[in-house]
Amino acid sequence: MGVVVQNIERADPAVIDGLAACGVATVHEAQGRTGLLASYMRPIYRGARIGGSALTISAPPGDNWMVHVAIEQLKAGDILLLAPTSPCEDGYFGDLLATSAQARGCRGLIIDAGIRDVRDLTEMNFPVWSKAIFAQGTIKASLGSVNVPVVCAGAFVNPGDVIVADDDGVCVVPRANAAKVLEAAQKREANEGDKREKLAAGVLGMDMYGFREPLAKLGLKYV
Amino acid sequence: MGVVVQNIERADPAVIDGLAACGVATVHEAQGRTGLLASYMRPIYRGARIGGSALTISAPPGDNWMVHVAIEQLKAGDILLLAPTSPCEDGYFGDLLATSAQARGCRGLIIDAGIRDVRDLTEMNFPVWSKAIFAQGTIKASLGSVNVPVVCAGAFVNPGDVIVADDDGVCVVPRANAAKVLEAAQKREANEGDKREKLAAGVLGMDMYGFREPLAKLGLKYV
Amino acid sequence: MGVVVQNIERADPAVIDGLAACGVATVHEAQGRTGLLASYMRPIYRGARIGGSALTISAPPGDNWMVHVAIEQLKAGDILLLAPTSPCEDGYFGDLLATSAQARGCRGLIIDAGIRDVRDLTEMNFPVWSKAIFAQGTIKASLGSVNVPVVCAGAFVNPGDVIVADDDGVCVVPRANAAKVLEAAQKREANEGDKREKLAAGVLGMDMYGFREPLAKLGLKYV
Amino acid sequence: MGVVVQNIERADPAVIDGLAACGVATVHEAQGRTGLLASYMRPIYRGARIGGSALTISAPPGDNWMVHVAIEQLKAGDILLLAPTSPCEDGYFGDLLATSAQARGCRGLIIDAGIRDVRDLTEMNFPVWSKAIFAQGTIKASLGSVNVPVVCAGAFVNPGDVIVADDDGVCVVPRANAAKVLEAAQKREANEGDKREKLAAGVLGMDMYGFREPLAKLGLKYV
Amino acid sequence: MGVVVQNIERADPAVIDGLAACGVATVHEAQGRTGLLASYMRPIYRGARIGGSALTISAPPGDNWMVHVAIEQLKAGDILLLAPTSPCEDGYFGDLLATSAQARGCRGLIIDAGIRDVRDLTEMNFPVWSKAIFAQGTIKASLGSVNVPVVCAGAFVNPGDVIVADDDGVCVVPRANAAKVLEAAQKREANEGDKREKLAAGVLGMDMYGFREPLAKLGLKYV
Amino acid sequence: MGVVVQNIERADPAVIDGLAACGVATVHEAQGRTGLLASYMRPIYRGARIGGSALTISAPPGDNWMVHVAIEQLKAGDILLLAPTSPCEDGYFGDLLATSAQARGCRGLIIDAGIRDVRDLTEMNFPVWSKAIFAQGTIKASLGSVNVPVVCAGAFVNPGDVIVADDDGVCVVPRANAAKVLEAAQKREANEGDKREKLAAGVLGMDMYGFREPLAKLGLKYV
Repeated sequence: MGVVVQNIERADPAVIDGLAACGVATVHEAQGRTGLLASYMRPIYRGARIGGSALTISAPPGDNWMVHVAIEQLKAGDILLLAPTSPCEDGYFGDLLATSAQARGCRGLIIDAGIRDVRDLTEMNFPVWSKAIFAQGTIKASLGSVNVPVVCAGAFVNPGDVIVADDDGVCVVPRANAAKVLEAAQKREANEGDKREKLAAGVLGMDMYGFREPLAKLGLKYV
Repeated sequence: MGVVVQNIERADPAVIDGLAACGVATVHEAQGRTGLLASYMRPIYRGARIGGSALTISAPPGDNWMVHVAIEQLKAGDILLLAPTSPCEDGYFGDLLATSAQARGCRGLIIDAGIRDVRDLTEMNFPVWSKAIFAQGTIKASLGSVNVPVVCAGAFVNPGDVIVADDDGVCVVPRANAAKVLEAAQKREANEGDKREKLAAGVLGMDMYGFREPLAKLGLKYV
Repeated sequence: MGVVVQNIERADPAVIDGLAACGVATVHEAQGRTGLLASYMRPIYRGARIGGSALTISAPPGDNWMVHVAIEQLKAGDILLLAPTSPCEDGYFGDLLATSAQARGCRGLIIDAGIRDVRDLTEMNFPVWSKAIFAQGTIKASLGSVNVPVVCAGAFVNPGDVIVADDDGVCVVPRANAAKVLEAAQKREANEGDKREKLAAGVLGMDMYGFREPLAKLGLKYV
Repeated sequence: MGVVVQNIERADPAVIDGLAACGVATVHEAQGRTGLLASYMRPIYRGARIGGSALTISAPPGDNWMVHVAIEQLKAGDILLLAPTSPCEDGYFGDLLATSAQARGCRGLIIDAGIRDVRDLTEMNFPVWSKAIFAQGTIKASLGSVNVPVVCAGAFVNPGDVIVADDDGVCVVPRANAAKVLEAAQKREANEGDKREKLAAGVLGMDMYGFREPLAKLGLKYV
Repeated sequence: MGVVVQNIERADPAVIDGLAACGVATVHEAQGRTGLLASYMRPIYRGARIGGSALTISAPPGDNWMVHVAIEQLKAGDILLLAPTSPCEDGYFGDLLATSAQARGCRGLIIDAGIRDVRDLTEMNFPVWSKAIFAQGTIKASLGSVNVPVVCAGAFVNPGDVIVADDDGVCVVPRANAAKVLEAAQKREANEGDKREKLAAGVLGMDMYGFREPLAKLGLKYV
Repeated sequence: MGVVVQNIERADPAVIDGLAACGVATVHEAQGRTGLLASYMRPIYRGARIGGSALTISAPPGDNWMVHVAIEQLKAGDILLLAPTSPCEDGYFGDLLATSAQARGCRGLIIDAGIRDVRDLTEMNFPVWSKAIFAQGTIKASLGSVNVPVVCAGAFVNPGDVIVADDDGVCVVPRANAAKVLEAAQKREANEGDKREKLAAGVLGMDMYGFREPLAKLGLKYV
């Protein structure tokens, strides 16, 4: 507690943007069905799809002091990611903090806690994925840490890891794997276009994927 | 487990569409306040109102193989309805499966589990009512069944039962009762227009429904 | 049980409208971070921001008879606020009751239970903050009370207290404090405009609020 | 609603007792991993293990009138099983009802709602599996039904089905399958004794079940 | 915030003990089915049944400083009752605080948050009803208040109100009503002994309470 | 996926046993209030207090094959710790697996999922901390991994980390810190004996900890 790591490594911006373009479901699949945050992490408005480098915050429950500390560490393209040290749904973040973060190039916030001023945030086009919308104010009394490893909504996140978030939720990609995961994700995507066309034309997945034989072997009975 | 029932009876399409037009709240009332799925079954987008015949899927947790099997059984006007065999919020269904289902005339999906690609599904105008939005991928390893009776989100559903779903949730109408329920629902609706007008004009429900006397008898006191 | 209080005092309409304009987060802060209802109280549609006098309803679970009784007591500018006497998510309220309430000048509904006909309510522009959207019908068999003190979603509300509700949730302001809270809220708001400008220009909260020294004293370490 | 079915068929008492002796986990496995009620159904005290014929109750939320009606229908060896028509955790049942039920040979209660007087029930040795312990009183105002099919805690139950309940939860066995399920359950049990001995002696499941080859085929790597 | 009320009125000790002897379910019924705290408030061990005067604590989330302040205000026969100002399950209280409270005659703790050292508390015979068992430590940084009105687990409690707690949960009786509620509760109890005997002898509630006629009038059908 | 790490380092057995003797609350405090698993992880019976080395299992939802693989890797003094790859409450573990694990010196199981045969496990004195008790059976179809880092109930655990579990819950201590944390924990304990005595004698925490001055400075008012 009480540590701010100032220099973290980030992934290649082109890789990050490539992952964001693939979206959460595809990226998650591309890295072996790992990296998802819990399903209770919902966007405050629909339609945002972002990628960025995790600037992590470990904060005491009901205390948002460290968010100010973190904002100073932001580089353009970063995403703030906050995990409370015990379960909390207080509103750590609102329009003033968003204004400050946005001024420094922050692309959004992932927070395993509450958020407020959602109307303003929506108008500002500052996307947030949170556990709750709750106006409950916080205090500034205790230290936390910035840019340390955290568990956020069930996922382990290192500072500088790539975060992808869209209407399906939030996914973390370890920085070291980002390029490889992008490659796999893009391969999946290329593949999907073709499949989508066939399915739209009425071809059955049963035939396209060759499921009839293995299902019959397992004993599936048609009556 | 491991059974696909291929020929199920369905209700009269005109009855189904009539029930959809009445909406969930009215249909539920018209059949004696029964048939609702749990309130956690929420639409992925607002404004859809559908009716259709239940094509039921009993699927293992985290395994969506049976969805492919079910899609082959779809007839135009059907609604896929999936119940996992143990609680699960994994994302069984996404845009590829929706493309395939839509190509076969499927009107939507009711799923007591998770769903992903919600942006695509929204753009495709493929409505879903689900327990969760969660990108978590599934596998194809075990058998389930298609068109067997299931309990879905607390409601008992037989294949071929009528499903009505809108912003208020999801309701099931046993196939054999569909015509009778429609009749009762339409009677309620006719009734409501008149009531709405009076209430809008300032008439009180207290007077319109004659509540003053029974309330006084029970001892309601005005102070 | 079984009491309807007919004459309650209400706050000054100008104060009420002033509080509504400040919004939930600001009002909550202005009264010392108190008064919020639980975060599960969500609006059925986004964008509404209302203020009004609480017309309270204590109702049995699954019985909405008292809503009719309460509507007769409505004065223009009131907000209906319903607390069930035991946990319940049944749909106490729909478009007919909303039509009646709106005809009498009601500004909205706060309900620690369920609601239905949300499409109609949205079209009518009748805002509701509820625990659930659930079509489950209710009965009219037992007495409750109107305009008695209640605990609603964890907050204590007296009839005539001021309710403010927006996308961030719901806040109650005791009637006697309303003017004083408005003053404090407006002071906060005036303050915020200036801060927002500075933050937007890139000034850090760390500097604007003078956080560096107290954080250093507590031992925050930069590495 | 409002129907009491007086004559229901019950399974062979010897079969019922046999199933109870096998316990919930074994019975559930023996019928193909089906029949479990939701895991939130917990015993009010540990150590009870019962089997009996389901005497089903469909009751309005917060209204326990039908429990009295049901008690008259009890035959020795029955288990009361109550499902509310909408989610409810009120205390439908306490020591007086338990005294009456026990006097008529009832073996216990399964209730997807609340229960009270748990100290008395424990002393009386009257086992209950419930969703909640909650003293909240109920009323006697509306009709429900007795001995109709219900969905209880996610499981479909017909009157006369066999209920098995122990510290692991609750399982329902369709009456028609009871003898066959018992046979399969007893076969499982016979089997388990032998396995338990080997495992206790240090034999590995990996060897006893022959898992090494299939795991290697799937690509499991030891490093 | 930041107020300690030192002199509060308490109910007559004989009345308090009388209410405790009646138990939660009976007391709750005797005051018109009101006063229960939420069902998630569970005892850390079974078998305790206490009554006492509420010494209330309003505490910030994750900050237990006010518990020390409250302990100084304890009089023999009091029960500590803590409500956090926002939802929290941290462990505010453990064996050291219990030792101190017990030394001053405190009969137990009601806390809408977490608790730890439950093994020690059980051995000390210091009963607690809490929302969670969670070892998470708290801080001492912010003020709260002692002996102010609070909402605790959904119930409104004034300092000096009577608290009754047992295996069924927790109930609050407003101080001014305590004697009257005790009288009603004892009347109920006297009544119950007779009923219990009859029911144990096989008399049906249907006959004892005269339910056959009203049920028939409502249309209950036996088939 | 699909990796079994065979040789992991473990902490000094004396240190592990020392930590277990301190208990979860003390150990958690001694390492700076970190390391707790979520409060929903409850023991299947009260009174167990264990310490051991984490043998981690990452398992697919509803598939317990990897538990068999893990048991072969057990060394005396280990604790099995299972995290599913998506939320699941199925019963991964019962008496046969416990027999096998116990035969190899396993001290208990920590599982962010379900468990069954709790009566047998209690009789065997095999302690388990789990998310659910649920008889639901699992399959053996997919690979997971053994002795890889996992997030279990919100805590990050490396294989070989020290696990301490008792009635208060579960705490993980990183292996490298174990000796240092033990030292701090024992210092806390030594300290507590003295404090306990004073508090039992009626000394107030207000005086013993010197709280009066700092509270007065913050503005605490006695009225």
